[in-house]
Amino acid sequence: MKSKKSPSAVVLLSGGLDSATVLYWAKAQGFKCYCLIFDYGQLHKKEIIYAKKIAQASGSNYQIVKITFPWKGSALLDKKIALPKKIVKGVPSSYVAARNIVFLSFALSFAETIKAQRIFIGAHAQDYSGYPDCRPEFIAAFRRMAQKGMLEKVEISAPLLFKTKAQIIRLGQKLGVPFALTWSCYRGGRYPCGKCDSCYYRAKGFKSLGLGDPLKIKK
Amino acid sequence: MKSKKSPSAVVLLSGGLDSATVLYWAKAQGFKCYCLIFDYGQLHKKEIIYAKKIAQASGSNYQIVKITFPWKGSALLDKKIALPKKIVKGVPSSYVAARNIVFLSFALSFAETIKAQRIFIGAHAQDYSGYPDCRPEFIAAFRRMAQKGMLEKVEISAPLLFKTKAQIIRLGQKLGVPFALTWSCYRGGRYPCGKCDSCYYRAKGFKSLGLGDPLKIKK
Repeated sequence: MKSKKSPSAVVLLSGGLDSATVLYWAKAQGFKCYCLIFDYGQLHKKEIIYAKKIAQASGSNYQIVKITFPWKGSALLDKKIALPKKIVKGVPSSYVAARNIVFLSFALSFAETIKAQRIFIGAHAQDYSGYPDCRPEFIAAFRRMAQKGMLEKVEISAPLLFKTKAQIIRLGQKLGVPFALTWSCYRGGRYPCGKCDSCYYRAKGFKSLGLGDPLKIKK
Repeated sequence: MKSKKSPSAVVLLSGGLDSATVLYWAKAQGFKCYCLIFDYGQLHKKEIIYAKKIAQASGSNYQIVKITFPWKGSALLDKKIALPKKIVKGVPSSYVAARNIVFLSFALSFAETIKAQRIFIGAHAQDYSGYPDCRPEFIAAFRRMAQKGMLEKVEISAPLLFKTKAQIIRLGQKLGVPFALTWSCYRGGRYPCGKCDSCYYRAKGFKSLGLGDPLKIKK
């Protein structure tokens, strides 16, 4: 049970295992968490169902924000663009320009409105090879921008920033994250495809720890 | 006629006279303009109709982005909150937390996708007494954040930043802005209410120049 004096935080929740781990980490730090889930036209809408499940399992509140990116240009928004397979050099086709900037901006709006002191985001090392809005220097610059553009001080935390997928899974295990309720696959079919880069990194993470993924992989 | 080599720009267009002036300013600078209009749950939805009219009058493209701020907390989003009247001390009730941060973030996404080099925003001195995300130091910090979080360099321009409403109207006149196609009133009725702070500043601006507003005011 949290006391009424618990600090509150907005947690960006995608339904994947990274943000689920961040949610449980924030809770373990004593924050009352308000999850922000985005329905942004992603083809793998299924992750939203999982995000809700995780928020509920953790006993947290959540808000769904519906937005459109009418300009597409990403494999996550446009069926005609092929999803990245395993390791890709440079920017993967799943990149949605400024997506984390948009998500964090909504989190600022939400945080200030509900007087939350902190925002948590699950950006991490594996992502920032390709995604500019996952880099540590971006997070630092966003933090400074928020200080100038908001009435209240809102801190931005990215506790996974320098962790590998295996380290995130290990941390999630310790925190009791229900990984069976997390969804990573970009295809959003009945089972994870096991072929897209998101599935690849997830499987590699579990394997390197000698663990099985609690989610079934399509054969 | 613009040549194919015209640089392109994303212009945040609200339907009011500030952003309309910015649009005509950007065009005068030789930019091919792509307007971004937000349908964000504002009670004065009427401004969207005017924004489209201005975009069309200027011969520019536009995109409408539909988003929700499910947390309300502003007189622009919630009928139960009274609109500010004339001059208010501190933050007016029309303040939507982080609205410009959200709008500029979408502009970054759009700009990078269409390879526009610049974003124009109509933030200005009159606003930044109350709105933290209209202050010059915010615009500067946002610019630095964009440099860290994007693949491509996108410049942010706020050409009205240090201008008063009267100076903006004077500039708009010179540029041929069709002020009759701009809408400022927060109430969004058949005619402008003439009572909200947005109407107040608009009327004051025209009056100080000895001009009449081409839009009819409700008696």
